Amino acid sequence: MTRQFWSVLLAFALCSVVRAQDAQVEKWDYYELSLPGPKAGNPFIGVEFSAVFTNGDQSFEPEGFYDGDGVFKVRFMPDREGTWTYRTKSNRAALDGKTGQFVCIAPSAGNHGPVRVRSMYHFEYADGTPFWPFGTTIYEWPYQPEARRRATIETMKQSPFNKARFLVIPPWRQEYNEGPYALDCFPFEGTPEQGWDFSRFNPVFFQRLERCVAQMRDIGVESDLIIFRPYDGGKWGFDTMDAETNDRFARYVVARFAAFRNVWWSLANENSFIRHLTDADWDRLFQIVQASDPYGHLRSIHNADRIYDHSKPWVTHVSLQYYMAVRYFGVSPLLRDIYRKPIIHDEINYEGNIESRWGQLSGAEMVYRFWIAMIGGAYVTHGETNRGEPFGDGWISTGGTLSRESPARIAFLRRIVEDGPQQGLDPIEQYWQPNIAGRRGQYYLIYFGKEPATEWAFLLPDDDLKDGMRFRADVIDTWNMTIEPVEQVFEVQRMDRYQFIDKNKGKIALPGRPYMALKLRRLD
Amino acid sequence: MTRQFWSVLLAFALCSVVRAQDAQVEKWDYYELSLPGPKAGNPFIGVEFSAVFTNGDQSFEPEGFYDGDGVFKVRFMPDREGTWTYRTKSNRAALDGKTGQFVCIAPSAGNHGPVRVRSMYHFEYADGTPFWPFGTTIYEWPYQPEARRRATIETMKQSPFNKARFLVIPPWRQEYNEGPYALDCFPFEGTPEQGWDFSRFNPVFFQRLERCVAQMRDIGVESDLIIFRPYDGGKWGFDTMDAETNDRFARYVVARFAAFRNVWWSLANENSFIRHLTDADWDRLFQIVQASDPYGHLRSIHNADRIYDHSKPWVTHVSLQYYMAVRYFGVSPLLRDIYRKPIIHDEINYEGNIESRWGQLSGAEMVYRFWIAMIGGAYVTHGETNRGEPFGDGWISTGGTLSRESPARIAFLRRIVEDGPQQGLDPIEQYWQPNIAGRRGQYYLIYFGKEPATEWAFLLPDDDLKDGMRFRADVIDTWNMTIEPVEQVFEVQRMDRYQFIDKNKGKIALPGRPYMALKLRRLD
Repeated sequence: MTRQFWSVLLAFALCSVVRAQDAQVEKWDYYELSLPGPKAGNPFIGVEFSAVFTNGDQSFEPEGFYDGDGVFKVRFMPDREGTWTYRTKSNRAALDGKTGQFVCIAPSAGNHGPVRVRSMYHFEYADGTPFWPFGTTIYEWPYQPEARRRATIETMKQSPFNKARFLVIPPWRQEYNEGPYALDCFPFEGTPEQGWDFSRFNPVFFQRLERCVAQMRDIGVESDLIIFRPYDGGKWGFDTMDAETNDRFARYVVARFAAFRNVWWSLANENSFIRHLTDADWDRLFQIVQASDPYGHLRSIHNADRIYDHSKPWVTHVSLQYYMAVRYFGVSPLLRDIYRKPIIHDEINYEGNIESRWGQLSGAEMVYRFWIAMIGGAYVTHGETNRGEPFGDGWISTGGTLSRESPARIAFLRRIVEDGPQQGLDPIEQYWQPNIAGRRGQYYLIYFGKEPATEWAFLLPDDDLKDGMRFRADVIDTWNMTIEPVEQVFEVQRMDRYQFIDKNKGKIALPGRPYMALKLRRLD
Repeated sequence: MTRQFWSVLLAFALCSVVRAQDAQVEKWDYYELSLPGPKAGNPFIGVEFSAVFTNGDQSFEPEGFYDGDGVFKVRFMPDREGTWTYRTKSNRAALDGKTGQFVCIAPSAGNHGPVRVRSMYHFEYADGTPFWPFGTTIYEWPYQPEARRRATIETMKQSPFNKARFLVIPPWRQEYNEGPYALDCFPFEGTPEQGWDFSRFNPVFFQRLERCVAQMRDIGVESDLIIFRPYDGGKWGFDTMDAETNDRFARYVVARFAAFRNVWWSLANENSFIRHLTDADWDRLFQIVQASDPYGHLRSIHNADRIYDHSKPWVTHVSLQYYMAVRYFGVSPLLRDIYRKPIIHDEINYEGNIESRWGQLSGAEMVYRFWIAMIGGAYVTHGETNRGEPFGDGWISTGGTLSRESPARIAFLRRIVEDGPQQGLDPIEQYWQPNIAGRRGQYYLIYFGKEPATEWAFLLPDDDLKDGMRFRADVIDTWNMTIEPVEQVFEVQRMDRYQFIDKNKGKIALPGRPYMALKLRRLD
């Protein structure tokens, strides 16, 4: 045998080895490609870098980003099993035309893919599993000491919450400037004392934030990432950046985070408090996020005193702060009918005891608002405050532990929702009987709110009911978390042109306490 | 003297006579030009006809219309005093290049011009006089016998109502086909028996409708003209016309009615019940109305089960049918914040006793809903039903007389509103105290709704208040229509970061009945 033969054989063997060693990434996780690139000048500006990932007729082109130290990265979240090949594109030779491949394997248990809108008003994971958002708010948890971050994750694991809202840019606080809680890095290069170079991001800051998003992902929590925020008190200047900086920032955030399946984009918290940005600016930022995210993660924006027009096409769901909207039956259905998108009441005041009136809800009121919203076919986000923390307002600021009354009742509500119609709860008759949700003819959840009802005479709106249909009922105490089956079986019979009653004029006894509900399920 | 001299003199004299006889039209009335034109073929189709009216730098080009019998007309509503000249434009010689002039004189008393939006959420006439809509609904009154039409006008004159919603196309009814109430003309050429020629309008029908609009104008009532409607029961086909017919119909209506200063355009009643028309169709119809109306009359659309997107730019105000929205404090403010346009609850159920549940409100509930909406900074439209009419549902169908309890209380409310801040009522603190409207620091109207309050401890949100400001109060019984001044003068003093109290901890006694209100006016 010739030397040449052995060379070919060796090459072939090596090649096979490479094949066998193809990176494996599970569906909806991400593949990360790192390449050395230009370090000179400002690599954050002017370097175009992306990669086209292809699998059969499926193709995506995520944008890359500079990760510091001369390293450029591009991340890709595959949505199909099998071999994906890639080719990079860049205006710099070192980053252009690089090719390779990886193998996408089946998702592991608990990985259902990113969340998207389902049936106009609801959500589901990419694999079709329903997702009912039960959110909470922990704005600054990524910027806390390691022990507190760990506590936050442990608390989340025990909680009913499967979505967390938090800030990509920490708010200004004196405690973040100096002392035991001082931050050692910020989204931009610079320091509070020396100011910032807004043309250079700080990769270390984002790497840490990525670990937080990954931790949430690993416990099954969606990260509602808040890209801009007004909370700067005129100090750091992160809320007065010019359009060019804002646009670059939005693109950088999307390039880094879009490959995380558990990411939602919240363009801002209390956007209208960023006074120099107009709705036209938000239109542009929305469109930047939409255009740079190959996967179409959910997009919304959270208002202060001016509500952004959620009917615009790039808004996937309504993220609302409007306390009145969760105090009355019928308002969530109205919002659904106005927007024809899912409604999430992302700030309804917080359970707690701080001096600000927005952080003083009783547990009962918090749970009441959850029920009012969900009976209206909407979703809700929780928050908890605590006076006397080292700084901030307790859980909603820094995370840590939950200590109040509503989370257990929200968990109870979540179990009821999960046990209900898989399509989600819709208002049955929003114009006339807004305290009933469910699926017409199949499942009715009736909430009595603060009314201390002593009985309920069987009475349902007529939609999709027919004489002879039979129902079983449960009496639910939403505060004491009990579900008691009613012995009786009810058989419906038309009463008038609008309503059905039980043919035996059946009634259900209620204990005369507030916060009661009834669940009716069709038997046959 | 020669014969020629006399001829010249005569000509000059005649000419002067003509000048002296220039038609005079008061500002915001209309000038009508009639010209003989082509009669052959179908003059409704293919004849372009308009006129440019000019006064200095001001110029308008209203579209003309065929009025039957070979006569073409164009109507123009001048908005400036002085001499207006015109020149016609047409693709037919007989209608092209005709010139002339008229003199626009000062408006007479009671003529304030067309109504437009003021300060985002309110209305005013063109001369700056505030207009607070207190509407009512008389869908079919133009199609009733003369005596009933006269009764309707007399009733309107005595009522608090300054806006009336009615249909351009009568609804289908057996009674309109035959018998004493049979209509002898319809919007299109044809008869119920023989069917319609949708390519030919019936000028006589529109001439009669114009007289109705003029009668409303002459008693100071805005005509909210409903261009399309679904109420056809599959009979006449007026709700299943094709796009070309609908478009031509909308243009014809605008050409005939836009010169009436008291016209508002309601694209449809319960638009989504016209099942074959999509929102894209309504977009197009809105744009046709907008483009053909040189004066920019108010434009909206009234929903059934699908709410048109009122945030679109051609919608001037929100015309809503959503009963829940007028049952709770805080919903109208939410609607204002969503749309940033005036909100008119144009259908809130009707006071009366018909079998349909939408026509069964008590007077007290109707008045309650008016107050709830107006305290929320919105406007409301009334309606009354009566079982046992020869046909239809009473006032809301055929007009005639009003016999129920709410109109007097609505008149009472109207006087309070007119006596209040001239800018209109705005929510003072919609997120926290949605039962207070007025002008911050100046005027507060506090409504207690169904709560049978026995006293009110002086407490106001802090916006624009300062220690030492003094207020006088009146106790209002919105149902019994009494206003009782409170002896005491209140002087405000900051209580906490959110609220002010009276420095003497003043309270106001209330009678423990529902439907009470308080009015606070700043003294100095």
